[in-house]
Amino acid sequence: MNQINRVAIVGGTHGNEFTGAYLIQKFAQFPDLITRPSFETVTLLANPQAFAAARRYLEKDLNRCFLRQDLQNPALNSYEELQAKSIQNSLALNGDKQADFILDLHSTTANMDLTIILVNTNPFNLKLAAYLSEINPLVKVYSCDFKSVAENPFVNSLCELGFAIEIGPIAQGVLKATLFQQTEELIHAVLDYLEQFNQGEIPATNKTLTLYHHLSVVDYPKKQDGTIFGMIHPELQDKDYQALNLGDPMFITFDNQTIVYQGESTVWPVFINEAAYYEKGIAMALTQKQQLKI
Amino acid sequence: MNQINRVAIVGGTHGNEFTGAYLIQKFAQFPDLITRPSFETVTLLANPQAFAAARRYLEKDLNRCFLRQDLQNPALNSYEELQAKSIQNSLALNGDKQADFILDLHSTTANMDLTIILVNTNPFNLKLAAYLSEINPLVKVYSCDFKSVAENPFVNSLCELGFAIEIGPIAQGVLKATLFQQTEELIHAVLDYLEQFNQGEIPATNKTLTLYHHLSVVDYPKKQDGTIFGMIHPELQDKDYQALNLGDPMFITFDNQTIVYQGESTVWPVFINEAAYYEKGIAMALTQKQQLKI
Repeated sequence: MNQINRVAIVGGTHGNEFTGAYLIQKFAQFPDLITRPSFETVTLLANPQAFAAARRYLEKDLNRCFLRQDLQNPALNSYEELQAKSIQNSLALNGDKQADFILDLHSTTANMDLTIILVNTNPFNLKLAAYLSEINPLVKVYSCDFKSVAENPFVNSLCELGFAIEIGPIAQGVLKATLFQQTEELIHAVLDYLEQFNQGEIPATNKTLTLYHHLSVVDYPKKQDGTIFGMIHPELQDKDYQALNLGDPMFITFDNQTIVYQGESTVWPVFINEAAYYEKGIAMALTQKQQLKI
Repeated sequence: MNQINRVAIVGGTHGNEFTGAYLIQKFAQFPDLITRPSFETVTLLANPQAFAAARRYLEKDLNRCFLRQDLQNPALNSYEELQAKSIQNSLALNGDKQADFILDLHSTTANMDLTIILVNTNPFNLKLAAYLSEINPLVKVYSCDFKSVAENPFVNSLCELGFAIEIGPIAQGVLKATLFQQTEELIHAVLDYLEQFNQGEIPATNKTLTLYHHLSVVDYPKKQDGTIFGMIHPELQDKDYQALNLGDPMFITFDNQTIVYQGESTVWPVFINEAAYYEKGIAMALTQKQQLKI
């Protein structure tokens, strides 16, 4: 990668995550905001029908539709599966119009501040993440890099460079001005960094990146029939990116029994109590905190 | 009303308001919790299909389906309209099995603590609301009493006694243990009060009730095509039940222009930034704070 020619900012991949969707609308109205001299910036409202319905998706979670084998499978034709193929055509299979960098905007009900979700260990992405976390202490870096791009079902699988931004806590279906503005500032910082890269003037950064590496997911306490009988413990609620040690409370059941963490090694939970993950059987994701030399 | 014989606790009227829906499931599993000597308590998961889908409703907002004329209109047959008729049959037209008191459990993304929503000025309801706000400072009383019961589209139109409980802030589709427990405590306080009433031992209360009386609603800033171009101002976000005066910030537009309150008289906004009200064109409801002698 010698030059970035085309940047795609994607929002509304989940239709009830309003921050990204409305930022896309703002940028469409004020394109100068995302214009930089050395590259083109395009915007994409990824799931317009879900946005219109204020729902995450209509038939299938769009941000799970980008497995290579699924994009190539003509039998998959739900609204979101077709939309994924259309987005692939636009951003990845578009000849000299394809995107060199994709920023995908999300929000979460979990207390994750401004999280960068890396899906690979490309050194460019790591350096940019280190820079962003250096200039803004609200930025956290969560790594769920896949063994191969073929296993990555996210929008960001379409392009080696780029990542998702996950902001929270914010309810689905609302805008919060502070988070809207923080997200926009982060986007500007990314675009400015890419411009400096193209100009051969990459800012100096820390040589160490604090990274939360995905380990596993934990489900809610459930009865045999699959129904939930407990909630995130009040002592864990909103404690994303904080250490969870053997014996610390994780859940409280509806009849007030505390369930503690029983792992031997310390973990750092994220996506604690994310609304969209109830249906996926995920109460939180566990990560390992790492200092990565870059 | 000399004796309350049957109390109905309704939850999941909106399927993505999990607190009430899961409290109903808890009470179904532990019925002793809501049993009192002098009356029967029944529970109802009002919109089970919307709860299963984790959506507010499937076809029509169930808590707008209880207008008398709609309940009597055989042409109305969406899922929720039929469900409303079924609930009316169960709770209001059921001979000696009908409910004498209905508690309807809701949640909101707005910062409304434990709000009691009164739909009439029945002295029993006012006294109970005064008692609950006296024993728990988190309890607020919001009055949107209708001119007649025929104009009231809520579940609570089915019964003169009772009210809705609206707790927040909480995202749709999640449980928060603290709010779950606070709501359950409030339900127990209501049931204990009703038991004492039946025993002729009503607790003494303040003679004055602080009440927020509904005035009007305010929409988001919108362009001519109907799309939103502004958000709740950061200085107003989460300030439910606090005074809003002439010149105070209400909204901030996407291009950072502040829109201020231009009314002459002080108002007290509620339901600020409620997710479900975006589609209804409601950014907040304005109320007048009153001290009511009871």
